[in-house]
Amino acid sequence: MVVVVDGMGGDFCPNAVVEGCIAAIKEYNIEILITGSEELIREELKKHTYDTNKIKIINTTEVIDVGEHPVMAVKRKKDSSLVKALNLVKNGEADAIISAGSTGAFLAGCTLIVGRIKGINRPALAPVMPGKKMPFMIIDCGANAECKPNYLLQFGLMGKIYFENILKVVNPSVGLVNIGSEEEKGNELSKATFKLLKEANLNFVGNVEAREIPTGDVNVLVCDGFTGNVILKLYEGTVATIFDLLKTNIMASVRTKIGGMLLKPVFKKFKKDFDYKEYGGAAFLGVNGICIKAHGSSDAKAFKNAIKQATIFYDNNVVDKLKLEIEKLTDEKA
Amino acid sequence: MVVVVDGMGGDFCPNAVVEGCIAAIKEYNIEILITGSEELIREELKKHTYDTNKIKIINTTEVIDVGEHPVMAVKRKKDSSLVKALNLVKNGEADAIISAGSTGAFLAGCTLIVGRIKGINRPALAPVMPGKKMPFMIIDCGANAECKPNYLLQFGLMGKIYFENILKVVNPSVGLVNIGSEEEKGNELSKATFKLLKEANLNFVGNVEAREIPTGDVNVLVCDGFTGNVILKLYEGTVATIFDLLKTNIMASVRTKIGGMLLKPVFKKFKKDFDYKEYGGAAFLGVNGICIKAHGSSDAKAFKNAIKQATIFYDNNVVDKLKLEIEKLTDEKA
Repeated sequence: MVVVVDGMGGDFCPNAVVEGCIAAIKEYNIEILITGSEELIREELKKHTYDTNKIKIINTTEVIDVGEHPVMAVKRKKDSSLVKALNLVKNGEADAIISAGSTGAFLAGCTLIVGRIKGINRPALAPVMPGKKMPFMIIDCGANAECKPNYLLQFGLMGKIYFENILKVVNPSVGLVNIGSEEEKGNELSKATFKLLKEANLNFVGNVEAREIPTGDVNVLVCDGFTGNVILKLYEGTVATIFDLLKTNIMASVRTKIGGMLLKPVFKKFKKDFDYKEYGGAAFLGVNGICIKAHGSSDAKAFKNAIKQATIFYDNNVVDKLKLEIEKLTDEKA
Repeated sequence: MVVVVDGMGGDFCPNAVVEGCIAAIKEYNIEILITGSEELIREELKKHTYDTNKIKIINTTEVIDVGEHPVMAVKRKKDSSLVKALNLVKNGEADAIISAGSTGAFLAGCTLIVGRIKGINRPALAPVMPGKKMPFMIIDCGANAECKPNYLLQFGLMGKIYFENILKVVNPSVGLVNIGSEEEKGNELSKATFKLLKEANLNFVGNVEAREIPTGDVNVLVCDGFTGNVILKLYEGTVATIFDLLKTNIMASVRTKIGGMLLKPVFKKFKKDFDYKEYGGAAFLGVNGICIKAHGSSDAKAFKNAIKQATIFYDNNVVDKLKLEIEKLTDEKA
């Protein structure tokens, strides 16, 4: 398997990218291509000992910044680390792409260059997040601010296949994010989507109110990309705020400082349990290739886990399974 | 001032209702009417010593349950504790209503019986929630699952007036919940709303990504009721989940148990800081009266604080100020 990694994406590039790639080739049977400034990447690579046959640099001269207009940037910057990487996937020279750069450009680029799976209305960004009982997926998390019921049905099916194949969950549960538990609750989109999900070949558990999301009792949480993005960011923001506040208050007295020291293992465990880096990146499901968006603040470990995620994707033929499932859905309708 | 309290609403009725009312009449210069089963309420009242001139029972024979269809229930159950209370406000026999019962029935009842302020498109449920720096308001939190840009503009104006008058914040900031910070980000609703808010007579700070909501840096967060309801519930659910997990892990060893004991003041402070009960209930803004929805799990303190909130509303003529602001808005457009 060949994985291409965008060497110029993310807050800690290219050093974290390079370090993650080197850790990955030592553990998985893969080759890695890194796109980006050959000079910078070579300098980072020099710091490590590794099998030089397994990592190649694809030199590029442009970088797409986070602030740029996604579609424009992808169309104009043909020699950017992202676009070059995407073309390698398109041409079959790489089996998967990972980037921690601009989310907008990544989504636009995957759709424009790698393309959609036939029958998929809209690919969806699908991060897996830590929950109390189990990790859960929010699909879509921002690729589609405006959605139709049929898109959400497909999100549910794609999420199910992901959980079965990547997280090895048997008969994963699928829920619809909604503002009430009864079928008739919600907005027009959620009401219409409920009907479609109920009739689909899914372990559909009905509406899930946002209060229940963090428990992780439901595996796949389906929603439009606007709602999903709000959920993703609010969840991150709330966890961060609580720990900020606790930290400030723990530092306020000697007694509480000692208490905080004694609780270090608890906070450490929590930090580990709630570390998105454990789950790799957010898969962009529905495109015709393995496309994984790593978090902008990804460190070497996060890159390594995103690469691992790509290998599981590959080994389990997830893209082919998505194609089959969508074909089945189209046949049922016909 | 006369406040009517729905004696049969909430998880701890009528005892928490009665206890909260008694605490309130001792502190504020008000009279209270409690609607509900005279027998049950009288029994609770008997347990307390108080000025009997200040609390009256309005006997009712019906109760609206949480599971009932809101509009149907309000239309059919004329002798319910909620409908009777709403009619007292409508007829001018009470200046404010507080209920911890079914949110749907409360919103439907306020709109149908008390009525909207002239010029208001849609009243909005507007709870104030604890933030890191300051409390913040989410408006709308579920009264309007489907919204138009003009509704959201009015939400912003109503939120501003609330913050000025109830929380005494000078020139409160108003933000639009969105999935990116730039003006062109979001769905059709948020893009169109951005333009309206920018031109309005508001301290509009632009788009606010959900990650920033818990900081409390922005006072009033405007969104459609679907998104707002998701935010409200996810925020509550995430805080609860984190403390559940911490508690479990603290109880796991002797070391961490001692640490937990030492940190009791920290957790206690946090619990107090993040206690919605401190902020009373969620105001239903835009109806022609003071209508406050208390949390379903309200205890006596929460009821007392909701009553306090109603008195500030009354003393500051907030409903009249809302009317004036909406008139100004209509005049500007004309």
